[in-house]
Amino acid sequence: MSGKLTVGRLRGLDYAFDDPVLLKRALTHRSVGPDNNERLEFLGDALLGMLVAEFLYENFPAADEGQLTRTRATLVNGDTLADIARALELGEALVLGEGEQKSGGWRRDSILANALEALIGAIYLDGGIDACRAAIAVLFSKQFAAADPQFAVKDPKTALQEYLQARALELPVYETAEVVGPSHDQLFTVICRTNAMSSTVTATGRSRRKAEQAAASAVMEQLTEKNK
Amino acid sequence: MSGKLTVGRLRGLDYAFDDPVLLKRALTHRSVGPDNNERLEFLGDALLGMLVAEFLYENFPAADEGQLTRTRATLVNGDTLADIARALELGEALVLGEGEQKSGGWRRDSILANALEALIGAIYLDGGIDACRAAIAVLFSKQFAAADPQFAVKDPKTALQEYLQARALELPVYETAEVVGPSHDQLFTVICRTNAMSSTVTATGRSRRKAEQAAASAVMEQLTEKNK
Repeated sequence: MSGKLTVGRLRGLDYAFDDPVLLKRALTHRSVGPDNNERLEFLGDALLGMLVAEFLYENFPAADEGQLTRTRATLVNGDTLADIARALELGEALVLGEGEQKSGGWRRDSILANALEALIGAIYLDGGIDACRAAIAVLFSKQFAAADPQFAVKDPKTALQEYLQARALELPVYETAEVVGPSHDQLFTVICRTNAMSSTVTATGRSRRKAEQAAASAVMEQLTEKNK
Repeated sequence: MSGKLTVGRLRGLDYAFDDPVLLKRALTHRSVGPDNNERLEFLGDALLGMLVAEFLYENFPAADEGQLTRTRATLVNGDTLADIARALELGEALVLGEGEQKSGGWRRDSILANALEALIGAIYLDGGIDACRAAIAVLFSKQFAAADPQFAVKDPKTALQEYLQARALELPVYETAEVVGPSHDQLFTVICRTNAMSSTVTATGRSRRKAEQAAASAVMEQLTEKNK
């Protein structure tokens, strides 16, 4: 905890909670017990999706629905949320059960991303939609400044799926072949199979998602190369 | 249009638009041209997800995150949205291009569901979050009254996926084998393959989603029967 959290305030976040219990709950991982941040995470995830949609809708009047959807996916995903949580040093304020504490849970992407969503849910309950919108504008300021629907490309898994569907081919199957390393520093190896190709493609990444995206990207490269 | 739509008002919906252009746009399918409801649909989808999350969070304090998520999925999906759009007779108010008009687009689930989401987005822009919350409470009154996270079961595709993942088996592949009937009254036949079973399972449904769910359900039955 190390002084990151004082009553109703989280250092680095420009918001003071009327109800400090909400802040505490947002930072409490389920490994601690039943009074944890999971319900707040459910609420915060929905709030974040909505307020980012609103930001994009208002700021990019010429973007079509597909561009808006893809841009939101680049702004709201586990990797980006974990980055923002790290910039906020949220890990130092997390309340974890003993096991998670020992295994370095405060460094784990998923735990950080979930806590950030829970924090957004807590701000909404404490201060309403305007306070929540203002907090998201600050937390995501770098991401919002860089957002550009014109350059929002499809992520490789989506692109591969659409490529195969357009050709009436079966969807690819991703299989996790190996996970190595300690829980806070894992490396995932994923195999992607598609009957559009006779061989499989293997790729690695620091999360299952990243490994799958890398595999999909390699498959797309081979498929489009083949058709040149 | 048949009198369903008067300036700023849609019969059956207890909300009067300050800006009738927003209502018109929400009801205009992309087959008409570039000034259509797709951007509003993007916004409305996010609003609906958030306001239903809020409803569930507030009304079911004992439900855990998984129950809340599953309950929301039963409330917010293409089938339910199309049902609500039909109850509102939204199809009669839709503005469609000539091709869609002729092929009966106003009866199609996806077009109805998308227009309902666009309508929700338009109410938000016109009247703000409180007007939007009130409109959703009326539109979804039957669904909200019946919602019960204690009985929110996993849909068959999710259940099958989790069953296979827990056993480290590959995910099932769904292939559309056949689509018959006119576009507003189609029947889909889907084949589900999983290497947990030596044979495949075929199922039909009135949408691809329904056919896939029926196939997943049949596969689950066979798999769990086998293991008794």
